[in-house]
Amino acid sequence: MIRLAILLSGRGSNFQAIHDAIAAGRLDATIVCVISNVPEAPGLARARELGLSSHSIDQRAYSTRPAHEEEVLRVLAEAQPDFICLAGYMRLLTPAFVAAYPSRILNIHPSLLPAFPGVNAQAQAVEYGAKVSGCTVHFVDQNLDAGPILVQRTVEVRDDDTAESLAARILEQEHIAYVDVLRKLSRGDYRIEGRRVLFGLTVNGARGENGLP
Amino acid sequence: MIRLAILLSGRGSNFQAIHDAIAAGRLDATIVCVISNVPEAPGLARARELGLSSHSIDQRAYSTRPAHEEEVLRVLAEAQPDFICLAGYMRLLTPAFVAAYPSRILNIHPSLLPAFPGVNAQAQAVEYGAKVSGCTVHFVDQNLDAGPILVQRTVEVRDDDTAESLAARILEQEHIAYVDVLRKLSRGDYRIEGRRVLFGLTVNGARGENGLP
Repeated sequence: MIRLAILLSGRGSNFQAIHDAIAAGRLDATIVCVISNVPEAPGLARARELGLSSHSIDQRAYSTRPAHEEEVLRVLAEAQPDFICLAGYMRLLTPAFVAAYPSRILNIHPSLLPAFPGVNAQAQAVEYGAKVSGCTVHFVDQNLDAGPILVQRTVEVRDDDTAESLAARILEQEHIAYVDVLRKLSRGDYRIEGRRVLFGLTVNGARGENGLP
Repeated sequence: MIRLAILLSGRGSNFQAIHDAIAAGRLDATIVCVISNVPEAPGLARARELGLSSHSIDQRAYSTRPAHEEEVLRVLAEAQPDFICLAGYMRLLTPAFVAAYPSRILNIHPSLLPAFPGVNAQAQAVEYGAKVSGCTVHFVDQNLDAGPILVQRTVEVRDDDTAESLAARILEQEHIAYVDVLRKLSRGDYRIEGRRVLFGLTVNGARGENGLP
């Protein structure tokens, strides 16, 4: 069973998807804390309803980013998570924060990275005229939307798509992707080589996930 | 029936795939000329075997790029193609060449653009740790690997992939993608809005390709 911390700033639909997967027995994990930098985030209210350890750490109450992060790190240190899941956490992490949890902070981005990093990825994809987009779950490193990739799922960009309609279909895939990644991580059977995250290669010397047993 | 010119520098496997689709009645097109800048290109020999109008225009015989292109453009002007298909043509086109055939020159690139432009796209994808790559057929404009996209097809990047094994699986999808694009273009039912290439939207006001008739 892996211990998960969730950081969110909004509705936290990926948080809800992770919770649902745990509740349904599809993911062997426990959510040890939910932290929001936005007190009124609907995802934080939902975490309280669910009886989870919930922490409002209002960024406006801290004069500097490191001061705010210090409090977040203090809560995390108490909760002892194996992995920290960013789920719509709209605040950049400092290099010091990232360094405190190397290869243990996950983020999800609504494009097939390295295409369309940064904000409004879905609108970027539509405007670029991409025929395929999707989502990426990656480890967070010092650079924006650039850490090693765990999973990508694709979504067709349709001729009549707007940024909004594409975002809605990508979001469905985000929920699947995030749970999929955590299930893989919960099995512990992965390793990082350069930028590549490889799964299921160590079981009896045979390939696990993607090939025949 | 659309008239196609093929420009190639090597084996021309995409040229062969296009030829096969025409021969099998899967594509309503005719290849009006095959041009290579490399006299010994296997694809050019194959074009001769097939009895196609074949032109070796050795780039080493011309002192400047425009001088070489002038001869290529002369052959094209005689052949009167509707579309010019780059099929492993390893030579950059000048802006003047591109301007002579606006939205009528096609290229295929072995990645999901805008990810991994330029050379060795398959190796780039493997080294980046992408979990999904693929291929892109796009119109050629003044910028490298940047014109409006017609079709993209995806390929899973496997944990045990090398650049070579990934390239082989992408190549299979390239053959499908290039024929697919030409089939769509042969129906004439497309338009370009900004960077977006939209298909099948004009038939009876209903969506054609991607929706119900």
